[in-house]
Amino acid sequence: MSELIEIARYSRRGSVRRFDSTRPVEDSTLDALLAASAHAPNTGNMQLYSVVVTREPELKARLAQLHFGQPAATGAPVLLTFCADVRRFAHWCKVRKAQSGLDNLGGKFTAATDAAIFAQQFVTLAELNGLGTCFLGTATYNLEGFCEALGLPEGVIPVLGLAVGYPAAEAVPSDRLPLDVIRHRERFLDYTDEAIEAAYSEKENLPESAGFIAENGKETLAQVYAEVRYPKTLNEGLSEALAKAFE
Amino acid sequence: MSELIEIARYSRRGSVRRFDSTRPVEDSTLDALLAASAHAPNTGNMQLYSVVVTREPELKARLAQLHFGQPAATGAPVLLTFCADVRRFAHWCKVRKAQSGLDNLGGKFTAATDAAIFAQQFVTLAELNGLGTCFLGTATYNLEGFCEALGLPEGVIPVLGLAVGYPAAEAVPSDRLPLDVIRHRERFLDYTDEAIEAAYSEKENLPESAGFIAENGKETLAQVYAEVRYPKTLNEGLSEALAKAFE
Repeated sequence: MSELIEIARYSRRGSVRRFDSTRPVEDSTLDALLAASAHAPNTGNMQLYSVVVTREPELKARLAQLHFGQPAATGAPVLLTFCADVRRFAHWCKVRKAQSGLDNLGGKFTAATDAAIFAQQFVTLAELNGLGTCFLGTATYNLEGFCEALGLPEGVIPVLGLAVGYPAAEAVPSDRLPLDVIRHRERFLDYTDEAIEAAYSEKENLPESAGFIAENGKETLAQVYAEVRYPKTLNEGLSEALAKAFE
Repeated sequence: MSELIEIARYSRRGSVRRFDSTRPVEDSTLDALLAASAHAPNTGNMQLYSVVVTREPELKARLAQLHFGQPAATGAPVLLTFCADVRRFAHWCKVRKAQSGLDNLGGKFTAATDAAIFAQQFVTLAELNGLGTCFLGTATYNLEGFCEALGLPEGVIPVLGLAVGYPAAEAVPSDRLPLDVIRHRERFLDYTDEAIEAAYSEKENLPESAGFIAENGKETLAQVYAEVRYPKTLNEGLSEALAKAFE
């Protein structure tokens, strides 16, 4: 293997959930990072995304509430909302004697993927420049609330929230599954029960896992995930909201 | 604004569509890049994604064909297929007395977003290490074909293809819309006709745009996008395949 660079840096990154309240994030900083991040790849160079930058204390508090009051959201100096946006492209088509074919699930899904790629490029550049970030998937859980709070019109769908600020403490990297489980060679190799048990054993044996199980009165870590953190009812509500927004 | 780093590098990146056929990409290189990229953020640390690495000439040719024979796909030494994967998590739940709540649109959409974030982190690290990449959105356009070719079971959905190799020539950065159009302050500011015309004027006035319009016998660049490259029928087919895969 040739000498690879930056592997160590990217392997020890982590999300930041507590921010230095004395250190603001300047608009010019955000703009420079966003402009560079927009050079991330996107579908056909249509750039089917928009991002809303929220700083006003009242509006920020409203968004944090929609993010279920997560500390990362309530304590961040800035909240970003990365949106799938098929509206701008459709508008361009309209003023140029064309009709956009993207106003459907296919087009909007493409837009959502592009928004996620753009958002992750921003995370990378922000972290390189000393900022801390935390994705807030809850932007989709309260989809209609975000549309209302941010005035998102038809064709613009919130996909990912992001808390941004200078970290109050260094980011702590978290565990990951062994690469062998997520990387398949040539064709997908389906999991055996033994492979699954081996894959999750490190995570199950982390000191904090026993705490999560006890706190929630459960028997296994998988139950904490499936019954407490990401229960079926929550995802069914999400499914309903997404089906409506992406139709 | 404090001094920012790496802005110039990320602003001049570009996708690579022609690869050096004499220079292979070693498995150990791909593995190291993928393992580090898996430290990108993801939802609840569930890592709801898988990636299939394809090198076998016959299988690679089949995938390239499913990618509509794009030169980036036919000429790449390696093709990656990043997939949303709610299957591994469900299997873990099953062997640990729990039931996954993610086997629905909500869970699968979350998985697709995580897969895109993971894929973009890989692109960043690959580019830092001298590789060139090109996303192939066509993985969703021929969704069933990819599932069959790669043996993707229920709960594993191809989201993004990626051509990977050492570049045959330096990447050429492409144009982007002005930041003011994609970044909104506090609330979404809807576009006026004038704002749209201003936003797209640089793109419309690029020397190659006139060529695209003439080649395709169209009147405007928007028509090239909406009627030739991303027509409604194509996206409606995509919508149908996605609706089925994500239900």
